[in-house]
Amino acid sequence: MRRVTTIAEVRKAVAEARARGARIGFVPTMGALHAGHGALMDASVAECDVTVVSIFVNPLQFGPAEDFHKYPRDLEADEAFCRERGVDIVFAPSDEEMYPRPPRAFVEVEELTAGLCGAYRPGHFRGVTTVVTKLFHIVQPDVAYFGQKDFQQAAVIRRMVEDLNFPLEIRTVPTVREADGLAMSSRNRYLNPEERRAATALYRGLVAAREVMEKGERDPEKVRARVREVWAEEPLVREQYIEVVDAVDLKPVSYIDGQVAVAVAAFVGTTRLIDNILFPETGSLT
Amino acid sequence: MRRVTTIAEVRKAVAEARARGARIGFVPTMGALHAGHGALMDASVAECDVTVVSIFVNPLQFGPAEDFHKYPRDLEADEAFCRERGVDIVFAPSDEEMYPRPPRAFVEVEELTAGLCGAYRPGHFRGVTTVVTKLFHIVQPDVAYFGQKDFQQAAVIRRMVEDLNFPLEIRTVPTVREADGLAMSSRNRYLNPEERRAATALYRGLVAAREVMEKGERDPEKVRARVREVWAEEPLVREQYIEVVDAVDLKPVSYIDGQVAVAVAAFVGTTRLIDNILFPETGSLT
Repeated sequence: MRRVTTIAEVRKAVAEARARGARIGFVPTMGALHAGHGALMDASVAECDVTVVSIFVNPLQFGPAEDFHKYPRDLEADEAFCRERGVDIVFAPSDEEMYPRPPRAFVEVEELTAGLCGAYRPGHFRGVTTVVTKLFHIVQPDVAYFGQKDFQQAAVIRRMVEDLNFPLEIRTVPTVREADGLAMSSRNRYLNPEERRAATALYRGLVAAREVMEKGERDPEKVRARVREVWAEEPLVREQYIEVVDAVDLKPVSYIDGQVAVAVAAFVGTTRLIDNILFPETGSLT
Repeated sequence: MRRVTTIAEVRKAVAEARARGARIGFVPTMGALHAGHGALMDASVAECDVTVVSIFVNPLQFGPAEDFHKYPRDLEADEAFCRERGVDIVFAPSDEEMYPRPPRAFVEVEELTAGLCGAYRPGHFRGVTTVVTKLFHIVQPDVAYFGQKDFQQAAVIRRMVEDLNFPLEIRTVPTVREADGLAMSSRNRYLNPEERRAATALYRGLVAAREVMEKGERDPEKVRARVREVWAEEPLVREQYIEVVDAVDLKPVSYIDGQVAVAVAAFVGTTRLIDNILFPETGSLT
């Protein structure tokens, strides 16, 4: 495995692989790697000849009051993680390498970014689509992998790739969970033991939502109420949103028909966590 | 020369050329080709192994009151023009091929698009940067050619390519002029004979501006006044703007120092024309 820090180096390494006819898989990350990222790497290693992982905590996607400065950074551990998973190239640029001057060009996706997390994190998705565009242009992968946990992000990137004709495929990989159901997230590291226990309510709420839908409930308000009911038992969990949306265009539905996502965001103490399930689960977005 | 109309076809044709190791040059156009486009094609044919020309009147870059519907379209003549210039592939997609559904993803360049034409054509540059991004992703050229006549457009694209790390080079090719100095433009076809004569005032104004700068004038207000003086003799010419801006960041200068552009826009009858000169002319942007 090679670790490179400059755009020129990663371009050269990928160009060499491409010249050999290699299929290039790409997993963009912000580091603080966990088994969720591991699943993305596994998918890429299985489907591609060369896997590139980027590790870059992108300042552009954090709001001024958000956790950019405290976001966990541990490049040594991340590198070891990538090596174990069979990654070929780790690209870990500095802020200056990615943004040598204040950026003036941005990529924006409208409508799909208006609701869910987009409503609470103004500018976040613009930061994501802009840095992902940069990374796609730098790495030029054949396939890029995103986690279903960041459901809205995956849908936004997918739309960006289709609308702007990026010459690559997007794969969405199912959420990886802890044994007690908590979705893997770099931000789980912020939780103290009490919050960590309470945080399982997010997924327990979603499981309860799935149960009522499986029993035939088609009214999204009733499904949302069911999640809220489960969360009410955990005083440390403070709802930001609970939404039932169309799985592709992310618009709230008034009746559950076709594939929907139940998507939630909550603060557990001061840590903001998100999670979601698809219903029905078949007909994956990948 | 091949003419293709689908994204799949042009991708295939370019991939075949790239597999042979060909350097790919790209000239994006809206058709209605003239010697200005010809100079871009000549540069590409001289510097690259395979030249791709796109012909697409992009609805996204026209305002609702602008000339999208009357914009001259003559694909037969344009094809013949490309063939004579040694172009290898003409990509002439339909609106449906480029925009199969209403687009939601857009590329925007801030600041550089605020003044000059951007101030009078809201949304124009967003339409340009979005379609050029799409075309860059479809064609994947090594080099793309833009005319100095569309000076702000070239600067905006250049900034977009740098900020978003597009893996290609941008070349700006000097403006081609008629014998009497009028900058070549597809929109010159709109002019009646009287307007056509009056339209030479645009460049005559710029030549007069260059003369005063060559004589040592460094006050942009005096330079602008000199252009206005020349235009005042042509009642058919109605000023939209006359600006003296930094040649790279496009900001108006308060003192002429380093390379500037004198950039102008005027209506001649109902036809809007633009032109510009660089001063000093050396140290081209290419």
